[in-house]
Amino acid sequence: MTFPPQQQPALLYIKSNQAEVYRQLLQQSSLKTLPITDDKTQATIILADPPLLATQLHEFPKLSWVQSTFTGIDALTEPSLRKDYQLTNVKGIFGQLISEYVLGYSLSYFRHFQQYQQQQQQALWQPHAYQSVANKKMIILGTGSIGAKLAQTASALGFLVIGVNRSGITPKESTFEQCYSIDELDSALSQADIIVNTLPSTQRTRKLINQSHLSHCRDALLFNVGRGDVIDDEGLLVALEHHWVAHAFLDVFAVEPIAATHPYWQHPKVTVTPHIAATSFPEQVFEIFEQNVQRWMNQQPLLNEVNFERGY
Amino acid sequence: MTFPPQQQPALLYIKSNQAEVYRQLLQQSSLKTLPITDDKTQATIILADPPLLATQLHEFPKLSWVQSTFTGIDALTEPSLRKDYQLTNVKGIFGQLISEYVLGYSLSYFRHFQQYQQQQQQALWQPHAYQSVANKKMIILGTGSIGAKLAQTASALGFLVIGVNRSGITPKESTFEQCYSIDELDSALSQADIIVNTLPSTQRTRKLINQSHLSHCRDALLFNVGRGDVIDDEGLLVALEHHWVAHAFLDVFAVEPIAATHPYWQHPKVTVTPHIAATSFPEQVFEIFEQNVQRWMNQQPLLNEVNFERGY
Repeated sequence: MTFPPQQQPALLYIKSNQAEVYRQLLQQSSLKTLPITDDKTQATIILADPPLLATQLHEFPKLSWVQSTFTGIDALTEPSLRKDYQLTNVKGIFGQLISEYVLGYSLSYFRHFQQYQQQQQQALWQPHAYQSVANKKMIILGTGSIGAKLAQTASALGFLVIGVNRSGITPKESTFEQCYSIDELDSALSQADIIVNTLPSTQRTRKLINQSHLSHCRDALLFNVGRGDVIDDEGLLVALEHHWVAHAFLDVFAVEPIAATHPYWQHPKVTVTPHIAATSFPEQVFEIFEQNVQRWMNQQPLLNEVNFERGY
Repeated sequence: MTFPPQQQPALLYIKSNQAEVYRQLLQQSSLKTLPITDDKTQATIILADPPLLATQLHEFPKLSWVQSTFTGIDALTEPSLRKDYQLTNVKGIFGQLISEYVLGYSLSYFRHFQQYQQQQQQALWQPHAYQSVANKKMIILGTGSIGAKLAQTASALGFLVIGVNRSGITPKESTFEQCYSIDELDSALSQADIIVNTLPSTQRTRKLINQSHLSHCRDALLFNVGRGDVIDDEGLLVALEHHWVAHAFLDVFAVEPIAATHPYWQHPKVTVTPHIAATSFPEQVFEIFEQNVQRWMNQQPLLNEVNFERGY
């Protein structure tokens, strides 16, 4: 690939916990001639983990485009931050990993894996009655690429999958049995055996999953694999107490890591995981970045461009 | 349904740990007029758990047909036992449950659920690197109804699934990428990320999974959801020691329950479950029995007839 003179010269700055990996991937790729800089005042393109970039976003006078290494870019959409550049994120690579997390923990729960593990420690042979997950209802909040992939894998395992999105329209070629609009959330939740939040953090979704909505559930499992602040933590604790929610599997939190004193850690009905449901594998992020650099050079529309107003 | 005079009069004897449930199901079904007896000398049809029936099989002089409530009927195929009756078993209802077990434990393993559970007890936020299960190779021994259903659900989750059976021929309309014949077992095992035994217990399969074959594996997960005696226990312990097998998930054993002193209980690389991967739900067994009674009355071939010579 050559880099023709155009808009601005391409000059890349990398700000990521995986920076070294990205440098190696660059060297081995069609982008090996893409110049990299450590000078913030000259950089036009940034490849970055959003939380690391947010505090220094104003230090890049020539900034044209930021490729986020995460799906969640809410750190960069805060009202106080500049929005005079193109922002792209990564999509489509997380549905598989989220499926593994949600289906794995659902099966562990319904098939009593933890109980059998404890019994094994006591050399205790004691079968327990159970039900198949077939025909259990999974309500997925968000029907984008992650929600749709989860719908597909969960359906293959026999779950009945219902989506909740803004329009209430079932996405084409998806395996959702049906979709509800967000205004009908309570009707959807009242049927749920499993609820999975995949929603991004926006003004409309913050604390959406609160005591009022959760009061429509009965013994549901609740997964949060979207963003932490979509759940109202106090509302969830009430819901657990009242058996509206039987167990919560939480991978994302409003503030991460959660404090050692946080009530979730010791709660018998909460499983805490350290934001691992879907990790950005640099190889997959880089594939998207590589395509977008080519598009940027050719002044074509970039893939996965974020709309600052919508927030995703 | 009426019961016309024919071959012998239908007179049912029930021998099952779930006998009461089956009596209730009979009362609520089209078979409610089917006569039941407690007199072994008069019974012509038996609905039975095979291990419970095996020791008294000779006490039924008028026996015509046994409907097994299990898939595994090896308790009734011992050389010393009579074989002068029709034996049918249950099939097709276990693939879903076996899939839940195998996929649930596979995801738990590859996504470090146990590690995160331990960390939660210490309020420790510590992500661990992982790989997706996508494109991992699952070798399924046995391509019958259970193996084929597992192939289908595992493929939907991204596994590459290879079957092993007698012929090496891939069953039609299945999702096996390919099949090996049992003579090529070592070639199959050498590629395995996961091995799942679904084979019945027959003269040819007993202790099939032994030290010699397992020595071709590298860090594989091994599931036994078929019959206990298909695995050579001593060979498996050697394989675990040499990292040929990284972890074994064992649901069935040559003698059940296993003794409290059995080395499997305390082995850090073995998960023991008390024969729960696929439970006979009486409702599903009864559906098959109901169809077979109708066929027996009409002197039609029965569903799921077992061939005593093959042993399944």
